[in-house]
Amino acid sequence: MIQSRSTVRVRYKETDAMGIAHHSNYVVWLEIGRVDFLTAAGFPYRDVEKRGVLLVVTNLGLKYRRPTVFDDEVLITTRLGGLKSRLVRFEYALERVSDNALLAEAFTEHIATDLDKRAIPIPQFLRELLEP
Amino acid sequence: MIQSRSTVRVRYKETDAMGIAHHSNYVVWLEIGRVDFLTAAGFPYRDVEKRGVLLVVTNLGLKYRRPTVFDDEVLITTRLGGLKSRLVRFEYALERVSDNALLAEAFTEHIATDLDKRAIPIPQFLRELLEP
Amino acid sequence: MIQSRSTVRVRYKETDAMGIAHHSNYVVWLEIGRVDFLTAAGFPYRDVEKRGVLLVVTNLGLKYRRPTVFDDEVLITTRLGGLKSRLVRFEYALERVSDNALLAEAFTEHIATDLDKRAIPIPQFLRELLEP
Amino acid sequence: MIQSRSTVRVRYKETDAMGIAHHSNYVVWLEIGRVDFLTAAGFPYRDVEKRGVLLVVTNLGLKYRRPTVFDDEVLITTRLGGLKSRLVRFEYALERVSDNALLAEAFTEHIATDLDKRAIPIPQFLRELLEP
Repeated sequence: MIQSRSTVRVRYKETDAMGIAHHSNYVVWLEIGRVDFLTAAGFPYRDVEKRGVLLVVTNLGLKYRRPTVFDDEVLITTRLGGLKSRLVRFEYALERVSDNALLAEAFTEHIATDLDKRAIPIPQFLRELLEP
Repeated sequence: MIQSRSTVRVRYKETDAMGIAHHSNYVVWLEIGRVDFLTAAGFPYRDVEKRGVLLVVTNLGLKYRRPTVFDDEVLITTRLGGLKSRLVRFEYALERVSDNALLAEAFTEHIATDLDKRAIPIPQFLRELLEP
Repeated sequence: MIQSRSTVRVRYKETDAMGIAHHSNYVVWLEIGRVDFLTAAGFPYRDVEKRGVLLVVTNLGLKYRRPTVFDDEVLITTRLGGLKSRLVRFEYALERVSDNALLAEAFTEHIATDLDKRAIPIPQFLRELLEP
Repeated sequence: MIQSRSTVRVRYKETDAMGIAHHSNYVVWLEIGRVDFLTAAGFPYRDVEKRGVLLVVTNLGLKYRRPTVFDDEVLITTRLGGLKSRLVRFEYALERVSDNALLAEAFTEHIATDLDKRAIPIPQFLRELLEP
């Protein structure tokens, strides 16, 4: 799989006193993109406990290009940015649907842990699902 | 214990496009008041798993009296509003510290469950802690 | 219009350490239902400033019937619960889509204000849109 | 001013189904640190509209070192990381108070805008407040 696409509509709750979506919400939107990517790859995150693997965020980078406002529809494009024995990297673009304006670019990096939060190598089944 | 007092300062993140604290945050502030009340009563909620008891919200009522804005300090007063074999009720007042203005009045009702979320009677140790 | 229907999918961000959706998120979901109701009635809330009317929450009641977990799809049904010269009331049911289980029932009451947050009667154009 | 120090206590609302604070909350905590830094420097952010200057986030980097759980007290240390004609950079360390464990390191970069969100140079009064 090359990339997945998700959309969210900016909630009134997500606005702030500047009248725009508060920048912390972008981090939540990235997670929605990542969950959809994993689901599309065959790893629905709701089954994560059955698999015994957690993906924990270790690094986050976010460049904000344009603000977005209440009720805007936002397209999240998520792709695999890297896969090592102990690290998975996702890359993201956020665009406003109405005019295709780029809102933000981002990446997250993750390690795998067991359910007791001890670091483990990225499991083989997950590597196979993620690898192109 | 008659009542507990907690304070929060309105976060920029908690404002919305109207320029005031979004009404959903009040529900979070009530929880802070309740946790402080339980801790003061001898039931620190962080030990909840050791005790094997969860308190689950079943009913919430909130009357909003005045808006509050970024950086306001809010006083949360929490008191026990009722205690039955299967129900605990808390009552709350939210005031702005700078002028004692009443911001909201509220109640929450809770049942006890075990860690598998099966309803149980309010445990004896908790009744004893809460009873005046 | 009798009622509107909206859906949300429970975000990972919306879960808490009990493993269920935190109860404060239901308040956000009600707002999504209400915004969709108003939009369907002909009052898209994003145009609210052009209209010069804010709807401010003054009263909230929420009965929680069942917990819901990450990735559950939740149906929000919103209907007008009352309309007086200075008060609008909405009523809500939240159901899990997969099994139609009732998750919560709720109401909110609102007054109208101008953009300076001074209370005003419910404007005539809004009464006409909302009245059955 | 060299740096400012702020503390937050992890709210139950801020936990997620992994039992730890959700990573998006760290972004909110950075903002609390930044607001306290600006207030200490003589620029209380609640007066921002009187000054006619907004500080908009354009870049965010966050390295997560250790998870944190409900009721942990978190120390946020904020310092100026750079000041150019059109950019302000803040740097942050988050530590758990109980054992001084490093939880995260972060930076944010900001541009100034007027109240209509048009980019402007960092105003002179703000440069003077921020410069060591």
